[in-house]
Amino acid sequence: MNYKLVFRLLGRLMVMEAVLMIPSLAVALLYGGGDAPAFLLAIGITSFAGALLSFLLKPEREDLTARDGMAVAGLSWVILSFFGALPFVLSGAIPHMVDAYFEAVSGFTTTGSTILTEIEHLPRGVLFWRSFTHWIGGMGVLVFTLAVLPRLSGRTSHLARAESPGPTFSKLLPKMGDTAKILYLLYFVLSITETVCLLLAGMNLYDALIHTFGTAGTGGFSNYNASVGAFHSPLIEWIIGTFMMLFGVNFAIYFHLMRREKEPILQSEELWTYLGIVAAATLLVTLDILPRYGAFFEALRNAYFQVTSIVSTTGFGTADFNLWPLFSRTLILLLMCMGACAGSTAGGFKTSRILILGKSAYRDLEHTLQPRKVAVVRLEGKAVSEATLAQVGVYLSLWVVLAVVGTLLISLEAEDFVTAFTAVLTTLSNVGPGLGGVGPTENFAAFSPAAKLLLSFLMLAGRLEIYPILLLFSPHVWRKN
Amino acid sequence: MNYKLVFRLLGRLMVMEAVLMIPSLAVALLYGGGDAPAFLLAIGITSFAGALLSFLLKPEREDLTARDGMAVAGLSWVILSFFGALPFVLSGAIPHMVDAYFEAVSGFTTTGSTILTEIEHLPRGVLFWRSFTHWIGGMGVLVFTLAVLPRLSGRTSHLARAESPGPTFSKLLPKMGDTAKILYLLYFVLSITETVCLLLAGMNLYDALIHTFGTAGTGGFSNYNASVGAFHSPLIEWIIGTFMMLFGVNFAIYFHLMRREKEPILQSEELWTYLGIVAAATLLVTLDILPRYGAFFEALRNAYFQVTSIVSTTGFGTADFNLWPLFSRTLILLLMCMGACAGSTAGGFKTSRILILGKSAYRDLEHTLQPRKVAVVRLEGKAVSEATLAQVGVYLSLWVVLAVVGTLLISLEAEDFVTAFTAVLTTLSNVGPGLGGVGPTENFAAFSPAAKLLLSFLMLAGRLEIYPILLLFSPHVWRKN
Repeated sequence: MNYKLVFRLLGRLMVMEAVLMIPSLAVALLYGGGDAPAFLLAIGITSFAGALLSFLLKPEREDLTARDGMAVAGLSWVILSFFGALPFVLSGAIPHMVDAYFEAVSGFTTTGSTILTEIEHLPRGVLFWRSFTHWIGGMGVLVFTLAVLPRLSGRTSHLARAESPGPTFSKLLPKMGDTAKILYLLYFVLSITETVCLLLAGMNLYDALIHTFGTAGTGGFSNYNASVGAFHSPLIEWIIGTFMMLFGVNFAIYFHLMRREKEPILQSEELWTYLGIVAAATLLVTLDILPRYGAFFEALRNAYFQVTSIVSTTGFGTADFNLWPLFSRTLILLLMCMGACAGSTAGGFKTSRILILGKSAYRDLEHTLQPRKVAVVRLEGKAVSEATLAQVGVYLSLWVVLAVVGTLLISLEAEDFVTAFTAVLTTLSNVGPGLGGVGPTENFAAFSPAAKLLLSFLMLAGRLEIYPILLLFSPHVWRKN
Repeated sequence: MNYKLVFRLLGRLMVMEAVLMIPSLAVALLYGGGDAPAFLLAIGITSFAGALLSFLLKPEREDLTARDGMAVAGLSWVILSFFGALPFVLSGAIPHMVDAYFEAVSGFTTTGSTILTEIEHLPRGVLFWRSFTHWIGGMGVLVFTLAVLPRLSGRTSHLARAESPGPTFSKLLPKMGDTAKILYLLYFVLSITETVCLLLAGMNLYDALIHTFGTAGTGGFSNYNASVGAFHSPLIEWIIGTFMMLFGVNFAIYFHLMRREKEPILQSEELWTYLGIVAAATLLVTLDILPRYGAFFEALRNAYFQVTSIVSTTGFGTADFNLWPLFSRTLILLLMCMGACAGSTAGGFKTSRILILGKSAYRDLEHTLQPRKVAVVRLEGKAVSEATLAQVGVYLSLWVVLAVVGTLLISLEAEDFVTAFTAVLTTLSNVGPGLGGVGPTENFAAFSPAAKLLLSFLMLAGRLEIYPILLLFSPHVWRKN
């Protein structure tokens, strides 16, 4: 690893993080909840440490190797979460560092799992920062380095590959920096649209921003204990439900929409599979919970909101699905693992990977019958290389291993299997709530510090699609070059 | 499909099955439990139907295509289970056909899940047949066709590939028939050794045979409600525990042992990984359950028996692990999916597949750091082709899909998630007991007929390693050629 270069980059990201804390400081000052000093101190510490690293380190070589790219991707999330936890600790909102770290990781990774048992009494600046981390995390701390640090171009695609969600990375425009800018533009436009919709639906600006951050990043932190259910407004539920679904769509689709290109949208297998799954799951859950709600449209609204919330890995809630029939709970568990589309802000396994594995399996079955026939797996009209096919299989294995080992370790202290299993799945998929003891009305406070760190690790692994986080444990990455 | 050829082969297998019912008829006559007429009738029906098919059908072409091989493999287990269920129904031991079919499938697939709530009052001939199906299923109805129908050689490797457990099929001897004979010899010798050990440990011959059948086929049907726990004999538990472990070992190892070839045994990664996992799991469970048992050796014995029983996918029991701490239960669930070695009588995912996926993942991680380095995945000293790597990934996906869809469907009627999930995993892995409502002291009687058929399907899919069973749903297989 080129230590000097990697840590200088990390230093810059820390300075940037300090800058991103300023809006929260402003909110804290505005509402006078007593949390402004905490932000001031956090901004001071973070920017000082960051500036120190970025000014003192003078790397001999400026080019980023694959190894360094991975290291930056992995380390930045670990370190930014640490500094991001400072406002929580310094304000006294979350006194214990491990708890605060869990909450910050949950924020940046856009998971939305919380260790807080009561949130409504917390100062407004802290709650704003907590949700703002979702919005920052949503598009990835690193993709954003791409727009800010264009000097490193040429090799920065390593970073983007490490960071970009999904099995394949497709550049929308020839220049990486342009692609990043387009993505930001789309992210901003969608976010502003949602905020306006929520304002029109009767929310105040503060609540509208908080819930936009949670939706856009597919995170799910709310400033109410009852989450979106606190508004008792069907309109708001339909709006947020729909935006959750929209933020789970591959952003390339919006890019094509912006350019009025019909073909790639109509032919996007991932998009239509994703929308089909949302529709089918909503319908099945509606029918399953109908006896509990009586009215069809109420059941439909609750099903739609919970399904879009889980499949987009957001995790907002309007109903306690822990009380739903087993079939719906199992279906929700499934959607939890599936996640939404690649190239979106959502976590999980991603629809495109499922499509690739499904097609690959179909080809294998065909091959068994007709050994002489040579068939290529195609996705979105393009041939998928054998190497990518193998990688998707490997990714599934790694995912299963993390889920399995995680569940085994959490089972050392959890009350029951469902709690242990879903706590692991919901963090690994960056969803937020699970079932049983970590259901929508529960939280992660009861876990030991060790378990909280393990779950933080799973959130980071899920968010970064495993590789960059796992590679931090390789001595090879840490060797000086 | 070459209908005439396929159904003539199936007819022959039915005649063979009728012959294999004769020992059970003898047992029925010996003990006079009133079940002899049922066996006589079942033998009559099965042999008549089989003879009719095999004598009447005169195929124009005698060569077996890949498609036909798959069809024979899939259909034979479906059909033989049907006729194998006749003694249960005709004797009145299991009055309902779906229940009897479930029990026969569970027998032939060496699963050992049961719908019987009380077994000790059943006639001895029926119990003998029930366990004998394990022994028949153990080595595969089809591998045995290889020794009996050598006329079909040349193309029969399709059959063996469809049937042989594990990711790769290795012929021990150049001729398929010779390999099959060697495997039978080993199977017989190991079975007789176990029976003798059990007799020396104080079992009577009937019980010794029943429990040998259950061990050798890694099935797990006992003739006592308390399973092996009924004997209250530590010696018997150590013996059966050890033989369960041994029947989970790749039979190629015994072949090398017979030929006194040291190298392939010492270098077998799968063997040592498997033994290492058994040792580690036994130790971990021992420590976890120690507070409940007090004495170390009692905890060790119980841990050893339950671990070997589950990892070898046998399913005998001496303790209700449903009452063990969550960590042990989760570990058992893991072992349940893992299964033992390829080329053994065990079910599950198989250690060699896990090794391949693990090495493949490691290579991918390395590749991320050093994109230029070309590395080959090796198992047991041999390079694993990229095609095999991809296939193992696909196999994992199919396995996950079956587990997921199965759980979803079972959750429509199950009481809780753990029951639904483990009922599916234990049948798909051909283990026997699960957790919760299908735990070691429970049974599968409460499921609806539809669920029982679904679980039967999963047992068949697990036993045949998915492909031959899944392909039965392809219209392509059923098209005439």
